[in-house]
Amino acid sequence: MNKPDFPESEYETRLDRVQAAMQAEGMDALLFTSEAEVRYFTGFRTLFWQSPTRPWFLVVPQQGKPIAIIPEIGAALMRGTWLDDIRTWRSPHATDDGVSLLIAALRGSGRIGITMGRESSLRMPLLDYERLREGLRAAAFVDASPLVHALRMVKSPAEIEKIAAICDIAASSFARAADLFLAGQPLNEAFRSFKIELLKQGAEDVPYLVGGAGQSGYADVISPPSDETLRAGDVLMLDTGATLDGYFCDFDRNFAFGHVSDQAKHAYDTLYRATEAALRMARPGVVCRDLYGAMLKVIDQAGSDVGRFGHGLGLQLTEPPSLIAFDDTVLAPGMVITLEPSMVVCEGKIMVHEENIAIRDGPPELLTRRAAPELPIL
Amino acid sequence: MNKPDFPESEYETRLDRVQAAMQAEGMDALLFTSEAEVRYFTGFRTLFWQSPTRPWFLVVPQQGKPIAIIPEIGAALMRGTWLDDIRTWRSPHATDDGVSLLIAALRGSGRIGITMGRESSLRMPLLDYERLREGLRAAAFVDASPLVHALRMVKSPAEIEKIAAICDIAASSFARAADLFLAGQPLNEAFRSFKIELLKQGAEDVPYLVGGAGQSGYADVISPPSDETLRAGDVLMLDTGATLDGYFCDFDRNFAFGHVSDQAKHAYDTLYRATEAALRMARPGVVCRDLYGAMLKVIDQAGSDVGRFGHGLGLQLTEPPSLIAFDDTVLAPGMVITLEPSMVVCEGKIMVHEENIAIRDGPPELLTRRAAPELPIL
Repeated sequence: MNKPDFPESEYETRLDRVQAAMQAEGMDALLFTSEAEVRYFTGFRTLFWQSPTRPWFLVVPQQGKPIAIIPEIGAALMRGTWLDDIRTWRSPHATDDGVSLLIAALRGSGRIGITMGRESSLRMPLLDYERLREGLRAAAFVDASPLVHALRMVKSPAEIEKIAAICDIAASSFARAADLFLAGQPLNEAFRSFKIELLKQGAEDVPYLVGGAGQSGYADVISPPSDETLRAGDVLMLDTGATLDGYFCDFDRNFAFGHVSDQAKHAYDTLYRATEAALRMARPGVVCRDLYGAMLKVIDQAGSDVGRFGHGLGLQLTEPPSLIAFDDTVLAPGMVITLEPSMVVCEGKIMVHEENIAIRDGPPELLTRRAAPELPIL
Repeated sequence: MNKPDFPESEYETRLDRVQAAMQAEGMDALLFTSEAEVRYFTGFRTLFWQSPTRPWFLVVPQQGKPIAIIPEIGAALMRGTWLDDIRTWRSPHATDDGVSLLIAALRGSGRIGITMGRESSLRMPLLDYERLREGLRAAAFVDASPLVHALRMVKSPAEIEKIAAICDIAASSFARAADLFLAGQPLNEAFRSFKIELLKQGAEDVPYLVGGAGQSGYADVISPPSDETLRAGDVLMLDTGATLDGYFCDFDRNFAFGHVSDQAKHAYDTLYRATEAALRMARPGVVCRDLYGAMLKVIDQAGSDVGRFGHGLGLQLTEPPSLIAFDDTVLAPGMVITLEPSMVVCEGKIMVHEENIAIRDGPPELLTRRAAPELPIL
């Protein structure tokens, strides 16, 4: 049997918090279809979500424990969680992939919350969603995204412990950079070495590893590695979302080979100082857009960012809030966020820094090991 | 720059095929929101889909090349694909995360296809989907799932080559089982070793690795590994979906430690023979439900399967068709499927076999290396 990732009290607390919010918002039930939410409320953790074939559902009533409505193939694993009410069917099914079970579980609920807003997906076929709505015509389906975001943004001590542990594993792996990354090495081999190092250091999985390399900087930050060779003067960046018990770190490190241009040094120093400014400012009560603004002020460059300067993380590589001009989320103790300033180094080249922190009463807790103040040269 | 995974002609052929089907079905445009379809028609490959924050859209018109409507952060990578028309916005956006760009691109299309059926998700917020429908009130949104399934089920020679290559890497990794898996080893360490071996042998990534171990068999087939110790008499199963250029293998292997029960031997032999029966039968013109039936007949055990006895694979770990009683898909040359019979070994214990094959004129091509005829004892 698999050990649960958390003691039952963790899930009880999550349920208490969401049910209090449901009561305040007048929601009778929540319906979840996505991995992160199903896992958040149950502890059901499996890579089987990689298969798009079967839908998985979780109903959270306003009172009482959540109800899992899932394919029979997941029953054994779900029975190992704290749930009591597990309803299954043989999926894939010719005509009814769980919809009638869902309707039965939700009948009588007047207002049903479902995440419909920013960052959400509907992980069930639209035709089945329409059948569900048709079968529950008396119910109102309302957006539960704000409620769920507010809940999940504030992490428990046990969650922060897991994020800190995977940050530490990634930091120890980056500490071996000089052994792993070599001039003359193809970029994709550097990435492969780093992924193996993460696993050896204790990462459970490496769902995210992107980056780039080039003279003074890189063209983008989401590409898979090419087979081009690392050269003197290159800045290499690896950005990793490795996991432990399904919790992510998300940070990057930059390295130069042999020598480094003044432009690259300047960009590195600027981003380091922008991150310092954010570290000094990140306190409970501060608004996300102001934290963004503080970094933008140090960088002092129009159109410099890749969309935002940081975000939440936890069960997912990126979660609300965003450090961006329009996000008015107020920082609170227990939030875990990335600080991720970026800037243009020169025509077609950018640089990105990233650290992970937990918001605390007083100064934030750095979950990563702070990047070197000067661009490390390998 | 990243090299494209395929020459441009591959994408031209995919587009020609889908546009012929669109014309036959009277669809003016297709709208895609999910990774697999966006990649299928463009070659845009990135792990950045791990972040749920930003939506990504692809519009395929009935004539002309696809139109990418994507966050600015992906522009550099998308410009490396064969597309010409790339429309971007700064995402996340306060009020309009690509919806107005989508409406502009789709305006004038009378019938818009979107995948709404089996195995599909909507990877954009429901509220934005409603805004889109509202902005295109004159258009009919119709289900494009059957059309897309029919298209993607038949792989090109270049796609089969990639699947064969990753199957070969996984087969070479399984060939090292005796060195990697040891009695006395915690199960999660066996999994870690195997994941590292896959990467060393050349896998690009290992998005899926599940399995189990226990006396004579295992309780389920979707769990992450526990830290329990492998013991004599255990049957260990690892099921891997490793990738190369974003194409999956999906097969498992079973191993025993020290000795093995007669029940486990019998189950292994039965599943081996069920797979043999399927290999003899898998020819163009055969219906999926009959291939399922042939395996079921060998196994001769009520309620034995975990839902189905195989499925398509390619860009995704699992794709249509299903080898199941209700799937009337007719096998055609170029389809790549798994043969995955399963059965109950004894109370609470199951066993699963899996091979990957390409349907050819004449006998199928085994992409995996055939499992040993008898349960290997390590």
